[in-house]
Amino acid sequence: MNTLEAVDATDTQASCCNTVDRHVVGDLEAQQLAKVFKALGDPTRVKLLSLISASAGAEMCVCDLTEPVGLSQPTVSHHMKQLVEAGLVTREQRGRWAYYSPVASVLTMATNVMVR
Amino acid sequence: MNTLEAVDATDTQASCCNTVDRHVVGDLEAQQLAKVFKALGDPTRVKLLSLISASAGAEMCVCDLTEPVGLSQPTVSHHMKQLVEAGLVTREQRGRWAYYSPVASVLTMATNVMVR
Repeated sequence: MNTLEAVDATDTQASCCNTVDRHVVGDLEAQQLAKVFKALGDPTRVKLLSLISASAGAEMCVCDLTEPVGLSQPTVSHHMKQLVEAGLVTREQRGRWAYYSPVASVLTMATNVMVR
Repeated sequence: MNTLEAVDATDTQASCCNTVDRHVVGDLEAQQLAKVFKALGDPTRVKLLSLISASAGAEMCVCDLTEPVGLSQPTVSHHMKQLVEAGLVTREQRGRWAYYSPVASVLTMATNVMVR
């Protein structure tokens, strides 16, 4: 096969609608990505992450998260645990209160994998 | 208040960990965002969207999606319906088969809202 034939073969493959020619996620990667997205598959958790991301110091005390979402602290803590386990926020206990900070790169990287 | 005082006031506010000074999603927006993320909260749907996004023509027939995920066509169609309803893919019926195309902007925009 000469160079032109090789180019033609590539073009033919590229134009075929059913050819997968870029990276497709594997089983383990799909599970990890699904865990990140699933953590945000709930309106309350979306609001909680939005609140923390929008806070001036990029950190919020659990004591300041209850009122905006209208839920009790145990319920908020339960939701926050799922965000922590997905890697979307970090948690730091300081004295009586837990403080949460967003890890923006986790969602951005997960999205980049899906749309690349 | 002179200019320096104004700057100081801004700095004080910016350094306070509990101040929310950027856009926080409202209830309706949180529901819409959660719907998008929830659709990807499943490893099979992550793989399906990844396959379609990675296809050369950015379009795949349902008939080519069953083998890579190892599931029956009705099951794949069920998963695809959830991706369509979330706006993550479009569906076009052509003759016997349904063809799906990704709408990358939906996930990108949802992510941008969360990390801005």
